[in-house]
Amino acid sequence: MGKGVSHGLQRDRILRAAAQLFAQRGYHAVGISAIQEAVNLGRGALYHHIHSKEDLLYEITREYITDLAAFAEQLDADMDPRERIKVLGRHLVLKIASHQAELTVCFRDVQSLTDSRRAEVVALHSKYEKAWREVLVDGADLGIFRPYDPVVLKGVLGMYFYSYLWIRPEGMVSPEAIADRLNEMALRMVQP
Amino acid sequence: MGKGVSHGLQRDRILRAAAQLFAQRGYHAVGISAIQEAVNLGRGALYHHIHSKEDLLYEITREYITDLAAFAEQLDADMDPRERIKVLGRHLVLKIASHQAELTVCFRDVQSLTDSRRAEVVALHSKYEKAWREVLVDGADLGIFRPYDPVVLKGVLGMYFYSYLWIRPEGMVSPEAIADRLNEMALRMVQP
Repeated sequence: MGKGVSHGLQRDRILRAAAQLFAQRGYHAVGISAIQEAVNLGRGALYHHIHSKEDLLYEITREYITDLAAFAEQLDADMDPRERIKVLGRHLVLKIASHQAELTVCFRDVQSLTDSRRAEVVALHSKYEKAWREVLVDGADLGIFRPYDPVVLKGVLGMYFYSYLWIRPEGMVSPEAIADRLNEMALRMVQP
Repeated sequence: MGKGVSHGLQRDRILRAAAQLFAQRGYHAVGISAIQEAVNLGRGALYHHIHSKEDLLYEITREYITDLAAFAEQLDADMDPRERIKVLGRHLVLKIASHQAELTVCFRDVQSLTDSRRAEVVALHSKYEKAWREVLVDGADLGIFRPYDPVVLKGVLGMYFYSYLWIRPEGMVSPEAIADRLNEMALRMVQP
């Protein structure tokens, strides 16, 4: 394994552990020493990868929303809007199920970022929301969906996003099955 | 104005100001001195009403969810389930619009409560959710709604609750109009 890969893996491991600690105890309640302990690294080795606790918060919140926005952006705009909702919804639910700690931190602790970093993360959220809005607008233009209404957009996104609080990746209902049911409801919400 | 009333009003004023500060800056970033300043009270006068910052967090999170649960409990169980959704949904949206700071704090900072207090607030949330579940179950029994599915319940609640992040009490669309639109979508989500 090359040094670059190993460095990246180490960084991912640190971000993952930090996200879990922040999600469990709250960002402000977690000290750098608790993170060191969780990843079993000395202070020096940890600071080789990150420069501050706020750096960790920034990387955690930015990474997951960057992934979501990138996925939404590469989606074929000619795909049937109903299909696009299903693809976006499934991707979002699986991301939430596999990154529940990161999402919890993102929803809860984003206001602890410095102003410019918070603005950047908020802008990424807007970018992601814009991708969903385009699907609803395209569907409305085609007469498949009801006329575009921002309250419908927020309602649909709320239904999906709120699952970070109740989804259980190891629960009775698989994340895939949850995605199917939420998608079905999203389609009910947008139909004419 | 009697002493009791004035004491209660003062307490409400302190809770309101604390909720707004916590919502804006985050619970951990706000010191008692900032709260003193916001309500223009000396430390002694403030401590006459509350005993710690965590007391404030507890009162804020408990009060709003106690109100929600009490409203849901007194609802006539014989009312048409469709009508009950509309009444519950409207009450919830108007509560969110008028207590946005409190709700933000509740969603974000509940994990900063001591264990027993957190358990109490979480139990109140479950009680409120149970009231919604009963409506969906009653509607299913009457054949008005689809068979009861916990994912549908969570989807409906998520749609409403998420509005604490986007509702603007002074915005173009009134909270009442937002409630009507979310209610209409909730009914789509639960119909057979």
